[in-house]
Amino acid sequence: MTVAYDGTGLHGWQRQRPGLPSVQEHIEATLHVIFGQAVHVEGAGRTDAGVHAFAQMAHADLPRRFPLDALVRALNGRLPRAIAIRGAREIDPGVHARFHAIGKRYGYRFLLGAQRPAVAHGYYHWVRRPLDVGLMRAGAAHLVGEHDFSSFATNPGYVRRRGCVRRIDRIHLFRRRHGIDLVVQGNGFLYNMVRTIAGTLREVGLGRHPPDHVARVLAARDRRHAPATLEAGGLYLLRVIYPRDLLVRGAESTEAGTADG
Amino acid sequence: MTVAYDGTGLHGWQRQRPGLPSVQEHIEATLHVIFGQAVHVEGAGRTDAGVHAFAQMAHADLPRRFPLDALVRALNGRLPRAIAIRGAREIDPGVHARFHAIGKRYGYRFLLGAQRPAVAHGYYHWVRRPLDVGLMRAGAAHLVGEHDFSSFATNPGYVRRRGCVRRIDRIHLFRRRHGIDLVVQGNGFLYNMVRTIAGTLREVGLGRHPPDHVARVLAARDRRHAPATLEAGGLYLLRVIYPRDLLVRGAESTEAGTADG
Repeated sequence: MTVAYDGTGLHGWQRQRPGLPSVQEHIEATLHVIFGQAVHVEGAGRTDAGVHAFAQMAHADLPRRFPLDALVRALNGRLPRAIAIRGAREIDPGVHARFHAIGKRYGYRFLLGAQRPAVAHGYYHWVRRPLDVGLMRAGAAHLVGEHDFSSFATNPGYVRRRGCVRRIDRIHLFRRRHGIDLVVQGNGFLYNMVRTIAGTLREVGLGRHPPDHVARVLAARDRRHAPATLEAGGLYLLRVIYPRDLLVRGAESTEAGTADG
Repeated sequence: MTVAYDGTGLHGWQRQRPGLPSVQEHIEATLHVIFGQAVHVEGAGRTDAGVHAFAQMAHADLPRRFPLDALVRALNGRLPRAIAIRGAREIDPGVHARFHAIGKRYGYRFLLGAQRPAVAHGYYHWVRRPLDVGLMRAGAAHLVGEHDFSSFATNPGYVRRRGCVRRIDRIHLFRRRHGIDLVVQGNGFLYNMVRTIAGTLREVGLGRHPPDHVARVLAARDRRHAPATLEAGGLYLLRVIYPRDLLVRGAESTEAGTADG
């Protein structure tokens, strides 16, 4: 299933201890009501508290057959407004939302303006001074390709276990009316990696470092060289990428004919 | 002072009982910290829980002189992120934020789309089916001018005390990329009036009633004729209007040179 959620009042994707509502917990609880028994839901990846998603992917092994259209409607009718099931399809039993994902696309949103914003403050990172998008693009270019992203990760334990080599396939910066959007796609992301990339490019955009500072931070392979991890509210999970032949089987159901993620 | 706020996690403008944080209470508490004594803040009008403001106006009688620039900075440094002081100026002691206001401008935001949105769901009213903006404009035209708006008010007690005659000076509907914005300006608004106007125009836009249904609802002077009051999150206080000569005296301070409300 494709899941959109507003991270503002939620404790991220992953189930937490009781009293900290997460997206996974809400969906599992709703499936429990629908099926009358516990149903485990597995997401393509965790997102932190405050991070939004337009298209998180998740799978569940349902205890019995259930028409997909009706299931999506039943879920959306019971889930809080911050969570919406955008569509669902049947997949082969062996397909796993996380293990079969081959990439992800994230967006990070900067709002520019002299005045501190109040309305919708949880949906972007505000920068008071102008950002030079040309410098940011030049800096971002250093990140494309396969690199050791140790400098951009904030959980050393995980880093030691799995290694920090990841591949960034695309990184773009779009000028919007009141800000700049960063869009980055790669085969996997370390903990806080996108938010740390955003923080690094902000410094470059502000002129505090030249674009090749990004290359130096990368080469250092040491978190202490990277600047602050920017806030969660500016981060959006835009897409999870699977092999082209993985998801074409089975029936598809969306709540409606369109998808605008 | 000009105040912007995000209504999502706040219990409206007006001070409530303890434990229900309001904008007024936050500003008063912060002024208390700055001045070391209680300072009363008076707003131009109440807004409900969930309603946002780009430019609420408020005044306060300060216990002693304080440089305005420094005061605005001190407030913004201590207020929660959901509240920002956009600027302040000295006014004559007799000027009152509410009593001297001669008009207000509100916006109401519709989001159109086949899929139930999750991200930023507290910032618009979602309508699944298309809205005909031409029909909505034709319906809205019936509201311009001085009328008894009893049908659009939801607090009969207040209505009996003060009467329901108000004047709408302008009402516009703007097509946006993913929705429609309603902007309405008048000399005063009854409780829930804009949200009920939005609900009435939604019915017209959906084709459930012809545009002159709005005139019939108005003529009925009975709340039972108007459809549902739409949710608070779609409503924005855009501007409070004062007589042109009222606010030109005294020094002005804004946190920065621009204002984008």
